[in-house]
Amino acid sequence: MIARIAPEARVIDLTHGIPSFDVRLGAITLQRALPYSEPGVHLAVVDPEVGGRRRPIAIRVVEDDRLLVGPDNGLLWLAAQRFGGIVEAADLTRSQYRLEPVSATFHGRDIFAPIAARLAAGLELTDVGEPLDPDDVQPLAMPLAEVDADEVVAHAIAFDHFGNVLLDLEHEELTMGVGLRLGEQVEINGERGVYATTFADVDPGTLLLYQDANRAMAVAVNRASARERLGLNADDDLRIRRP
Amino acid sequence: MIARIAPEARVIDLTHGIPSFDVRLGAITLQRALPYSEPGVHLAVVDPEVGGRRRPIAIRVVEDDRLLVGPDNGLLWLAAQRFGGIVEAADLTRSQYRLEPVSATFHGRDIFAPIAARLAAGLELTDVGEPLDPDDVQPLAMPLAEVDADEVVAHAIAFDHFGNVLLDLEHEELTMGVGLRLGEQVEINGERGVYATTFADVDPGTLLLYQDANRAMAVAVNRASARERLGLNADDDLRIRRP
Amino acid sequence: MIARIAPEARVIDLTHGIPSFDVRLGAITLQRALPYSEPGVHLAVVDPEVGGRRRPIAIRVVEDDRLLVGPDNGLLWLAAQRFGGIVEAADLTRSQYRLEPVSATFHGRDIFAPIAARLAAGLELTDVGEPLDPDDVQPLAMPLAEVDADEVVAHAIAFDHFGNVLLDLEHEELTMGVGLRLGEQVEINGERGVYATTFADVDPGTLLLYQDANRAMAVAVNRASARERLGLNADDDLRIRRP
Repeated sequence: MIARIAPEARVIDLTHGIPSFDVRLGAITLQRALPYSEPGVHLAVVDPEVGGRRRPIAIRVVEDDRLLVGPDNGLLWLAAQRFGGIVEAADLTRSQYRLEPVSATFHGRDIFAPIAARLAAGLELTDVGEPLDPDDVQPLAMPLAEVDADEVVAHAIAFDHFGNVLLDLEHEELTMGVGLRLGEQVEINGERGVYATTFADVDPGTLLLYQDANRAMAVAVNRASARERLGLNADDDLRIRRP
Repeated sequence: MIARIAPEARVIDLTHGIPSFDVRLGAITLQRALPYSEPGVHLAVVDPEVGGRRRPIAIRVVEDDRLLVGPDNGLLWLAAQRFGGIVEAADLTRSQYRLEPVSATFHGRDIFAPIAARLAAGLELTDVGEPLDPDDVQPLAMPLAEVDADEVVAHAIAFDHFGNVLLDLEHEELTMGVGLRLGEQVEINGERGVYATTFADVDPGTLLLYQDANRAMAVAVNRASARERLGLNADDDLRIRRP
Repeated sequence: MIARIAPEARVIDLTHGIPSFDVRLGAITLQRALPYSEPGVHLAVVDPEVGGRRRPIAIRVVEDDRLLVGPDNGLLWLAAQRFGGIVEAADLTRSQYRLEPVSATFHGRDIFAPIAARLAAGLELTDVGEPLDPDDVQPLAMPLAEVDADEVVAHAIAFDHFGNVLLDLEHEELTMGVGLRLGEQVEINGERGVYATTFADVDPGTLLLYQDANRAMAVAVNRASARERLGLNADDDLRIRRP
């Protein structure tokens, strides 16, 4: 669809690997990838409510003049915050640039891609949809870590394909809380591990707590899956303390 | 291979996600994607008989001057029908543009990609192979739904990665047969569901019968797998009736 | 990252399908794909030791003036041998073209892609890193088949997504060893099969020994997984003899 409408546009596939329905992992992935991508039109679709009441939207963020296109279900929220928030938004529900007849189940093809292509070709938000108050864009609900002096309760907010577990915990919260130093032992949900810089610092099979490539705390097992080792599902608690 | 032979050609990867050996899902995917793609040379390879008696072919369809390249095992058939049928065909078995020595197991690399690239660079079917009677191109065998007044027996002709089930049933056959109206309850292989427009019309976990993004009937479970719920394999019957 | 630094570079995604941590399958895949790819800068990352002592490197090979970029863990080794060996190497550990701050766990983003892009844009190895003796580049350890008159003991050195099993055995070793001829029966780990040219030569479900698309010997089951049938893990023995 994009190649037909905007043949000059360069299309970069950031990922097709987000598991079905996982809006939050989609949002986190977008937030983390976009700072490394050239400014442009960023199209994202993880859309369990396709055809329902959620709006299709396009937004402009404060920094870099980036445009984001996708469903208004929180998917674009973290990336928008990363670039200073939303300065302009459009509701695409009745856009003249939808592909008619719009199917009830494939808005990626019929709404999002055609409109992202029009924006890439130079149209403005006001051309492709009706103005929408940026305050009406749906935020993304996220859990919040609890930081005490002897224990941090963080949450499993996303998993990657290695089974590494991303936490809702910043590096500063960890050092302020239980006051761990690099190389020290740590206990996570009763399992022993090490607070380390990277996988290579621990033996294969060892649990590690580390600062990931985007400065957030994460839990992994060297050459295996921390998700499986700890038996975690999304949003599950991770109780982190000194042994 | 394509970048070497036709460096100016734009290569669009429609999918690498067809399960091994599933010629029919490949054929359906191609038929559904091409109407949304710019005309050009369309290369497809799902090829369980690679190295055997099936011919490698290239065909030209009636509409849009599109060319299709792939194994003559039915894979290109539905797409060809979608564009009005085949007007010209070539047998690539002894093409001078094969990559020598041709391996017995990787014709995508040694025959199909090099010849698709030559066609993209401007060669004609008569340049790349021997003329083949379009009537000799292999059709794709498909099951056929039975439509009665109180029951429709459709078949599971393909599954997508969500576990949604595509049926060999058009919307008109459903309304003519059991005469369902949108929002009504339906029974599919003994399980209760709803005839709905889209996933968001039913609660998570509910079975739904719906018209999919390509106007054919399909069965899904909102946020889960209908294939698993109903325990379906390819070609299995789906008995659809009023409860 | 590449599109930002070298917007004119054409990026071809050879695969994102190498299983986690499988350096050897990555090395074999690269060795097999590159002879069919246009010369250029070839970036590869399978990197279980990321952040540890293994060096990030870039190398120039003898033939075609190709450059390879990746971790110094054997991943680039087979491809380098395929093109005549290494003539020049650079250690990227302190390259000025790393993306600062370099994360401990995502060198693909922070070291390998930015430097591959600089090389694609025209920089030399001496610009992007410190000179490294080609003899210090890490070789890849591989098993070695034992060829006797009545039995060959080969090893499972890689599996593809069909479950086909690649062996450390050349065609000549097989014919010199047990002296099989095409069409003859063969016994592999006690299971009966056929030495055939391609899948289509045997019935579905039949085990076959064949010369694969890269001239090495391989084992498959027509339309099923030889890996599962024989219960194989990496490096396992395959005892091949006449029945």
